[in-house]
Amino acid sequence: MTALWTLSLLLSASLLGCLAETSPDGSPLPHNLPPSLGTNSSDGSLSVDLPMALRVFSMDYHHVQAPFEIVLWIMLASLAKLGFHWSGRVPAVVPESCVLIMVGLLVGGVIYGVRHSAPPTLSADAFFLFLLPPIVLDAGYFLPGRLFFENLGTILWYAVLGTLWNVLGIGLSLYGVCLLAQSSLGDVSLLHCLLFGSLIAAVDPVAVLSVFQEMQVNEQLHILVFGESLLNDAVTVVLYKLFESFLRLPSVSGLDVLLGGCRVVVVGIGGLCVGLFFGLLAALTSRFTSRAQVIAPLFVFLYSYLSYLTSEMLHLSGIMAIVTCAATMKQYVEANVSERSNTSIQYFLKMWSSVSETLIFIFLGVSTIQDIHMWSWPFVCSTLLLCLIWRATGVLLLTAFVNKLRRNAVTFRDQFIIAYGGLRGAICFSLVFLIDDFPKKRLFITTTIVVILFTVFVQGMTIKPLVELLYVKRKKRALPTLSEEIHSRVRDYRNHS
Amino acid sequence: MTALWTLSLLLSASLLGCLAETSPDGSPLPHNLPPSLGTNSSDGSLSVDLPMALRVFSMDYHHVQAPFEIVLWIMLASLAKLGFHWSGRVPAVVPESCVLIMVGLLVGGVIYGVRHSAPPTLSADAFFLFLLPPIVLDAGYFLPGRLFFENLGTILWYAVLGTLWNVLGIGLSLYGVCLLAQSSLGDVSLLHCLLFGSLIAAVDPVAVLSVFQEMQVNEQLHILVFGESLLNDAVTVVLYKLFESFLRLPSVSGLDVLLGGCRVVVVGIGGLCVGLFFGLLAALTSRFTSRAQVIAPLFVFLYSYLSYLTSEMLHLSGIMAIVTCAATMKQYVEANVSERSNTSIQYFLKMWSSVSETLIFIFLGVSTIQDIHMWSWPFVCSTLLLCLIWRATGVLLLTAFVNKLRRNAVTFRDQFIIAYGGLRGAICFSLVFLIDDFPKKRLFITTTIVVILFTVFVQGMTIKPLVELLYVKRKKRALPTLSEEIHSRVRDYRNHS
Repeated sequence: MTALWTLSLLLSASLLGCLAETSPDGSPLPHNLPPSLGTNSSDGSLSVDLPMALRVFSMDYHHVQAPFEIVLWIMLASLAKLGFHWSGRVPAVVPESCVLIMVGLLVGGVIYGVRHSAPPTLSADAFFLFLLPPIVLDAGYFLPGRLFFENLGTILWYAVLGTLWNVLGIGLSLYGVCLLAQSSLGDVSLLHCLLFGSLIAAVDPVAVLSVFQEMQVNEQLHILVFGESLLNDAVTVVLYKLFESFLRLPSVSGLDVLLGGCRVVVVGIGGLCVGLFFGLLAALTSRFTSRAQVIAPLFVFLYSYLSYLTSEMLHLSGIMAIVTCAATMKQYVEANVSERSNTSIQYFLKMWSSVSETLIFIFLGVSTIQDIHMWSWPFVCSTLLLCLIWRATGVLLLTAFVNKLRRNAVTFRDQFIIAYGGLRGAICFSLVFLIDDFPKKRLFITTTIVVILFTVFVQGMTIKPLVELLYVKRKKRALPTLSEEIHSRVRDYRNHS
Repeated sequence: MTALWTLSLLLSASLLGCLAETSPDGSPLPHNLPPSLGTNSSDGSLSVDLPMALRVFSMDYHHVQAPFEIVLWIMLASLAKLGFHWSGRVPAVVPESCVLIMVGLLVGGVIYGVRHSAPPTLSADAFFLFLLPPIVLDAGYFLPGRLFFENLGTILWYAVLGTLWNVLGIGLSLYGVCLLAQSSLGDVSLLHCLLFGSLIAAVDPVAVLSVFQEMQVNEQLHILVFGESLLNDAVTVVLYKLFESFLRLPSVSGLDVLLGGCRVVVVGIGGLCVGLFFGLLAALTSRFTSRAQVIAPLFVFLYSYLSYLTSEMLHLSGIMAIVTCAATMKQYVEANVSERSNTSIQYFLKMWSSVSETLIFIFLGVSTIQDIHMWSWPFVCSTLLLCLIWRATGVLLLTAFVNKLRRNAVTFRDQFIIAYGGLRGAICFSLVFLIDDFPKKRLFITTTIVVILFTVFVQGMTIKPLVELLYVKRKKRALPTLSEEIHSRVRDYRNHS
């Protein structure tokens, strides 16, 4: 087990060393070619490298750089995951996300040491276009439909009102803090505070999933926390964009605020419609795959991704779209497609989402090693405190209302876990980098990283003991019996032949 | 069935229409934003679109353009494949590759009509880095090892000597043709003819696989044709690069020719070693995946692709590397990994390679619609004729030698199929675009396209009736019995629980 860890770390260190050596700033390598030949490589794959005398052996890193580095990062992520699960005791104590962030910190440190400059950060495009969709698709495809719709009212209650409560609460009280610490934080306006509040209030589905999956609390509590983290995306992202556009406007009128309210609804409902459309299209297409079974799984991925991209293009909620799309198509696809295809779809969704998740946490660690940090004790500490306070009071208040309408009330223990399980993650991180430059942007970035690390490490590591302490009802595990399993396979075989 | 075709064509036409409208030359869209806001989108995903007054609804195509268009192309390819297999009679008469090229021609025509400019061509980078590896990986992973090594001598004989014979034969006699037609082809040098010969002689594994898989000839004939098409890559690509570098040198010495000979060996053996290294590493890693089964399949893809990229980086034969890597790891991976993982690996390899193949043929069709064609009857016709003649004589001559050493001789019928099944495809096509500009480059491109279309359409469509006419021994099909299938699944279940 330690052998594997060592192997993985050695490999990654050497790989990254080579990477850092060969591309110090991501620019094409100089090789030792005359520039006239070097530039040739941009239009073709094979035409570089033979200068004035013929060489038997030559090398061209620039040609394969992009896919090579992506594969190396994925390899590092996979090896880290493998090492984590292979080591016997670590998984029992520390959640995977923490270990991965620590691996990221280590790798970032190595890169910083070798290069003497900051390692690459997780770009918002890479995150929103490539890393987030597989995770949300996986979540949507395996969403327990009945349970979700039974609790939809409560989930929406938390997701919409709870998020508004958090954003406004954190934003306004942070502005108060800035007014009190006038000397150092005087240049942070109310709108900046609200903007920051909207991104720091975003509960992250990736972080929540990763911690709650390992814990296995009862299903209802799980769907409440997870459902909220999925659906609050529409609200936080819209509020974020709203405040951002307010910052750009010369003045904010009442009409603008009203339009902003409309936008929240449009973004949510629009994402839902796009997802529904592509989900039904996928269900229809799956009817025709019986003679080309080999590409049947592909349509699940293609249509879902298309729904996500279309929503992003139209500035609707991509997360809503892909979850709806996956949930809509699921039962039709499962019925229309062979059992082997179903196995492959499920396996692949799980594989992809787990790699994405691993990459996100590693990159969170890597991106923490930066030159651009800016520190302010009052701002950082009060943000941390305010996040906790506003989330706790919000959950308590909203549950008091919602319990009057529910048959089975949300217990006080459940409320504590909901409030404490509101982890922040890569969504805040990506959003904070997108803020237009202003003097305190670096402080915002530092504070966001501190909040993420605090929630993932402190809350993520203590939530499991706390659940045990509070004796929250655990999920009952049900394994299929042998006869069930074989039965379903014989049925499948008959369908085939 | 026709409904599906219509749906697919309508969808693709409308999608491509939108595509052509929104990005006339692949450049970012102007939207109707002031440029200061428009340029903002390059550093972030969410920061565009809200100009001076708040909008409830907005759109940003540029942000998602790259993944969106890739997904659309894959979707078009998948739908075309689905339509082909759904239509009852077409697959019996026309090979899939022909139908796909025709779909490509149609789509290319539509794009040309809408845009009034040539559609995008298949870039050599996209082909060599992304489309070719999955196909060769699939071929290598499912390579029948015993059969391959039993026939390795014959395969190498065809692949090395046969290719040399073809390249030199076609190159030299084409130079003769150019000398005869001095008035129109006088500016084509001997080296240019040899360069062209080296790329036009490359038998294409993708085209060969696609035609021979549908035909199901006996296994030995299949491995001879397919093995040759895999291994001749090292020879053709090296010869191509050699002549290309000779063209750049001020003068060619005897030493250069000698070094060139060494390079052929280095490229082949080097690719083999790289593949072996990564294959063993993958076999080792698969031993540790038992506690993280969900990412086990990933390592098959990662290590194989890494072996391919490493070889390409070092200018070794990527095809040799990936085939060796896959063949080396296969038995270890299959033994170390659960049956569900194995199913997913196999399914995914097949899915990926079949999509790549489909995309390649569609793009061959699309890229044929060009503004840059140049026609010359003597050059095109003599190339076609010379390709056929030199391949036929080469196979006859080499088989005469090889039959003296083999236990079971290659029959005359088999020889005919080997010679006739030497289809050209996307490898030639990608290589011809990489030639440094010179006055007759456009003629080379046109001729290559004609040769590819001729081999795929005429030879590809007539080879099946010819096989039946010549009564070549067919492969015996063996389906697993019900008890075998269930048995293996029960065993798998026991391993799991």
